[in-house]
Amino acid sequence: MIARIARRAGRSPGGRWTLGIGDDAALLRGRAGEELVFSTDTLVEDVHFRFAREGPRVIGRRAIAVNLSDLAAMGAAPVGVLLGLCAPASMPVRVFDAMIAGVVFEAERFGCPLVGGNLSRANACSLAVTVIGRVETGRALRRTGLAVGDALFVTGVLGLAAMRRLAADRSKGPLRHVPEPRLEAGLRLARLRQTKACIDLSDGLASDLGQLLRASRVAAEIEAGTLPAAPGFTRACRGLGIDPLELQAAGGEDYELLFALAPGALADDSQALSRRLGVRVTRIGRVIGGRGIRGLPVRPGRHHF
Amino acid sequence: MIARIARRAGRSPGGRWTLGIGDDAALLRGRAGEELVFSTDTLVEDVHFRFAREGPRVIGRRAIAVNLSDLAAMGAAPVGVLLGLCAPASMPVRVFDAMIAGVVFEAERFGCPLVGGNLSRANACSLAVTVIGRVETGRALRRTGLAVGDALFVTGVLGLAAMRRLAADRSKGPLRHVPEPRLEAGLRLARLRQTKACIDLSDGLASDLGQLLRASRVAAEIEAGTLPAAPGFTRACRGLGIDPLELQAAGGEDYELLFALAPGALADDSQALSRRLGVRVTRIGRVIGGRGIRGLPVRPGRHHF
Repeated sequence: MIARIARRAGRSPGGRWTLGIGDDAALLRGRAGEELVFSTDTLVEDVHFRFAREGPRVIGRRAIAVNLSDLAAMGAAPVGVLLGLCAPASMPVRVFDAMIAGVVFEAERFGCPLVGGNLSRANACSLAVTVIGRVETGRALRRTGLAVGDALFVTGVLGLAAMRRLAADRSKGPLRHVPEPRLEAGLRLARLRQTKACIDLSDGLASDLGQLLRASRVAAEIEAGTLPAAPGFTRACRGLGIDPLELQAAGGEDYELLFALAPGALADDSQALSRRLGVRVTRIGRVIGGRGIRGLPVRPGRHHF
Repeated sequence: MIARIARRAGRSPGGRWTLGIGDDAALLRGRAGEELVFSTDTLVEDVHFRFAREGPRVIGRRAIAVNLSDLAAMGAAPVGVLLGLCAPASMPVRVFDAMIAGVVFEAERFGCPLVGGNLSRANACSLAVTVIGRVETGRALRRTGLAVGDALFVTGVLGLAAMRRLAADRSKGPLRHVPEPRLEAGLRLARLRQTKACIDLSDGLASDLGQLLRASRVAAEIEAGTLPAAPGFTRACRGLGIDPLELQAAGGEDYELLFALAPGALADDSQALSRRLGVRVTRIGRVIGGRGIRGLPVRPGRHHF
């Protein structure tokens, strides 16, 4: 099975990688003037995905995408990825191959080679992914640094991933949604001197915004009417009997970037900012004094550290 | 639960780490002149451990130790560790705390801070660990590079971990065995110009030696009578009705280093070599032409890539 992975990934990741799959560890040539960025996230069968709902290729792609999203939230460029794959011995080879194909496809889209990992038997399938990124020293987008008056933005749209998941669950249809890691936007945000803080939206706007605010001991006022939605989103939610605002605020798995900009001309011009970042961004509110979030139903929750 | 981990790990890993637990990712200051070393390995409940047999602290320690062993096999010094922890919601907090205490204890023993990770719900517990190490550029101990005539050595003793596991299974007693990662020996081997190749023994001597040999397209002749054993090992095996040689050859989980030295004075003097490496080493055979292993029952198998 490992030979199948190595063939798919290629044994020589190249570039700064001096050793890839096939030894006790992978080797990356060090550089001064940069910081290396590390994040890990695990997708678990029947918790984060179900083979009856997602195809194996989508599962593989998503495992990489949600991890690359953490690099995006740091303003980092991907360098490489490791995969700890647990699978039952009964997994068909074509399912295994399709999952690995999804992993390699999504990683290579972003120039991020699969450089190592391990395989374990387990009763349920899980994909533990560790991503390695790089950022110019001192330029990483942290969660701290918010000040009263900063403008709050999100990339893309909110609630779409949760809506698609609910729709697939209701219809017992396939779920093909793969989040788009906002790597390019993150890189560009890291170069903007106005950027104050950034986080990616994994658990839902209310939850992740709550974390961002607590890190700087500030509060936020959100204008719920401004939350960006995909075309047809509200109608689709009504068809499912769900409150669209609740999905946008707490649905989770958007993997969009939530970030703050210091007050100024750019913070007042979402169109110009969208052009600068190469992705649609929407101003959704501002940082205020105090604690908590005004204008949104707030749910706690945090799984990533 | 994450706050409990962060308190135990400390939020500031210090040194070259400019950001630890609490953001989207951890940050490590880069350096020229070194290679960074990455390896990942997952321990799965009911596959690699059982709560009824190992205590949670031993499980946490072992998850770190087996990963640090991969760094040792590269001749690398530990830099940091990430933990992807899956656990059922029903896990008692004291079990969770003890597992994390084991993780942090074992990592800190080797100056290796816990810098990040994630928590997921799952039906079974698993610990996906990623270790980061460093080595002077070009000095890593790879699996390749064997030549006919090289001497083969192992650190420590063989078969003890497997024997203890079997004894615990038979007696339904506790299993407290934690392998000792041979980090110091690995570092010293990386500085020896005679060192030709190195691997750590996770799946058993026959299996891991097989990998080492295939990487260089050579064979080995092992003198089974020289395989190092712990005091009382043979008697304990006989008491369990097991062939001691089979456990030494194929028992697995020794996490000793298997390495080759170019022929010469040091390769002929195990005592001098033991002093140089700071650990007992035993010459167990030599590299010959051809394929396969003479002198041992050979079992295939490989889980790490």
